Amino acid sequence: MADFSAGAAWMRGKIMPIGEASMGVLDWGLTHSDVTYDVVPVWKGAFFRLEDYLDRFMASMADLRLAPGMDRAEIRQALIEMVAASGLREAYVAMVCSRGAPIVPGTRDPRFCANHFFAWCVPYVNIIPLERVARGVSVYIPDDIHRIPEDCVNPRAKNYHWGDFTQGLFAAKDRDFDTVLLTDHAGNVTEGPGFNAFIVQGDRVVTSDHGVLHGLTRRTAIELCEAHGYTVEKRPLPMEEFLEAEEIFLTTSSGGILPVTRVNDRIYSNGTPGPKSAALREGYFDWMMRPEFREDVPYGG
Amino acid sequence: MADFSAGAAWMRGKIMPIGEASMGVLDWGLTHSDVTYDVVPVWKGAFFRLEDYLDRFMASMADLRLAPGMDRAEIRQALIEMVAASGLREAYVAMVCSRGAPIVPGTRDPRFCANHFFAWCVPYVNIIPLERVARGVSVYIPDDIHRIPEDCVNPRAKNYHWGDFTQGLFAAKDRDFDTVLLTDHAGNVTEGPGFNAFIVQGDRVVTSDHGVLHGLTRRTAIELCEAHGYTVEKRPLPMEEFLEAEEIFLTTSSGGILPVTRVNDRIYSNGTPGPKSAALREGYFDWMMRPEFREDVPYGG
Repeated sequence: MADFSAGAAWMRGKIMPIGEASMGVLDWGLTHSDVTYDVVPVWKGAFFRLEDYLDRFMASMADLRLAPGMDRAEIRQALIEMVAASGLREAYVAMVCSRGAPIVPGTRDPRFCANHFFAWCVPYVNIIPLERVARGVSVYIPDDIHRIPEDCVNPRAKNYHWGDFTQGLFAAKDRDFDTVLLTDHAGNVTEGPGFNAFIVQGDRVVTSDHGVLHGLTRRTAIELCEAHGYTVEKRPLPMEEFLEAEEIFLTTSSGGILPVTRVNDRIYSNGTPGPKSAALREGYFDWMMRPEFREDVPYGG
Repeated sequence: MADFSAGAAWMRGKIMPIGEASMGVLDWGLTHSDVTYDVVPVWKGAFFRLEDYLDRFMASMADLRLAPGMDRAEIRQALIEMVAASGLREAYVAMVCSRGAPIVPGTRDPRFCANHFFAWCVPYVNIIPLERVARGVSVYIPDDIHRIPEDCVNPRAKNYHWGDFTQGLFAAKDRDFDTVLLTDHAGNVTEGPGFNAFIVQGDRVVTSDHGVLHGLTRRTAIELCEAHGYTVEKRPLPMEEFLEAEEIFLTTSSGGILPVTRVNDRIYSNGTPGPKSAALREGYFDWMMRPEFREDVPYGG
């Protein structure tokens, strides 16, 4: 039996241990970062909002003109079979489509490459360790690093262009912050590495709709906020308004809703998770168990 | 005997056929495009300006805080041994350093990853086919796609963030242009996928020093222009000035100096390579044979 304890991958129709899954060094997915992906969580034995994640992945591929020769049903089936084989009950499940290598060696024409799909899953990832989430997340917003603009790389087609985030993470970690959040060149708050950001102000919540991935956890948080009676505004979110917020939280498929207690030198809610953010975080984990959002994994045995 | 006809790679101290060289799917070089590289040409059995390319590669690694556990002499030796083993007399030789995977599983801290170096070489690449170079290159400059700004991703640390170039190449190829060149948000010409751009105006040449890789072929072209008696200006290059030029050429380690005969709907030099650009192209190939720039590859047998 293969050892899937570290995770599993699906490549070219085969399921293998994650450590055996690799990409050739000439693949444009690597050498041009010409690749899109999506990540769907598996929680207590079921995919969460699988159809919504598949919707976005199919849209990202179309946007980037990637055609892997597999349709949605085949991709869906590959994900389900892979997670079932892995035995993982809580997992971070990635679906990836790469441009591949040119069909004609030496060409630089992206229209003539062997696009290909693969997938992998690993035990569920929390982008912020749980003990730090419990006491509230600290966020650094640098003033000298900005999010890549939309007219350079479309952030709604989920991509691996993380150079701005990586430099931001170095700046944040050097200063003992948990993570980084980037502004655009107009001074609006956008997104961070793997998450969207929200503010709470009275009975309103605000999240950016510009320069950001339209995250699925962002969508769940928007629906959840509406269910909790908040008015939700999706619009550019200026840095000044962000800093003056009553509460702040982040949303990510790798951890859910994360209350923020510090941004740069400002402390929120006396340094403990605010009551509204904490209630939304609880609500998110409840919603992850809602039958209409769940697709049971057909584990064997 | 291994078959190196398609190229060779150096990974973890071993030399292998290029088709066997791959990167794990969890490596941040792939999943965050957190990687730097450089490409040095081998021409008629010798590296061209190897020390200068190594200088830049070492500087790129330092800029991105990548430390692969190999010093410059070891990297140099790996490149030389790999090309010697490949037997390639004209080659495109890539040196790469990736962030690798986290040392602590699950961490998102870029300071704690297993950075690693690898290299590969393939038969010499011309980014524009020679028959198209002979009649002059056509370049498309879109008005709705811009080069990623410097305060998002530093273009002087050579990187694989090509999303803007890829979308630009689709736009160019759909319109039957050879390649694409991008402007910044201020309307200045920057660079294209794998090349810098120059204009010639009387006894002056101009090339951008903002938002671009400081290419080694750009440097050679600058030195060559000075040797030919031109005054060389390195400064922002407005689109209007670019379009009004007497001649235009591109510089790349994958083809040298490439005369341009068309930009969008404008034709230059009556649609054939201009005399000044053509002379510089000849000059570049002469310089590639200068002993002071060459490091002979110690091929066996």
